[in-house]
Amino acid sequence: MYKVKVYITLRESVLDPQGAAVQQSLHTLTYNEVSDVRIGKYIELTIDKTERDLDQLVKEMCEKLLANTVIEDYRYEVEEVVAQ
Amino acid sequence: MYKVKVYITLRESVLDPQGAAVQQSLHTLTYNEVSDVRIGKYIELTIDKTERDLDQLVKEMCEKLLANTVIEDYRYEVEEVVAQ
Repeated sequence: MYKVKVYITLRESVLDPQGAAVQQSLHTLTYNEVSDVRIGKYIELTIDKTERDLDQLVKEMCEKLLANTVIEDYRYEVEEVVAQ
Repeated sequence: MYKVKVYITLRESVLDPQGAAVQQSLHTLTYNEVSDVRIGKYIELTIDKTERDLDQLVKEMCEKLLANTVIEDYRYEVEEVVAQ
């Protein structure tokens, strides 16, 4: 079994209004040190043992469904989970 | 300057309907190996040098605004960015 952690972030060039709103709220709460906020998604996939190539599989899932590659970047980490 | 990466996830005991919907879609796309999907948030904060304690600061921001600690867990990583 594998645990795959996928991080999806907006590309640098894309405006992040949600991040801007959070930054504004943090300033209102007196956290003026915060100079930038970017909000992305964090997805944990649990994948059963498979004959298919895992890297290939995860890339396909990200590009077809999880990320919008026009405006988002993704990266992922794979962890093998050993059943106890 | 610091770059703080905050990961916010739903607690294990909390249902994740968004994750369930994504899992369903992945199965429709023939990725039947995926046995669980959990969706969380990934937030990147850029924080200017400050006299306040950074750990304390990030914890406060998470608990007051970024995470709903009743149903969500958070963890974070701090990276110091050296100006070039």
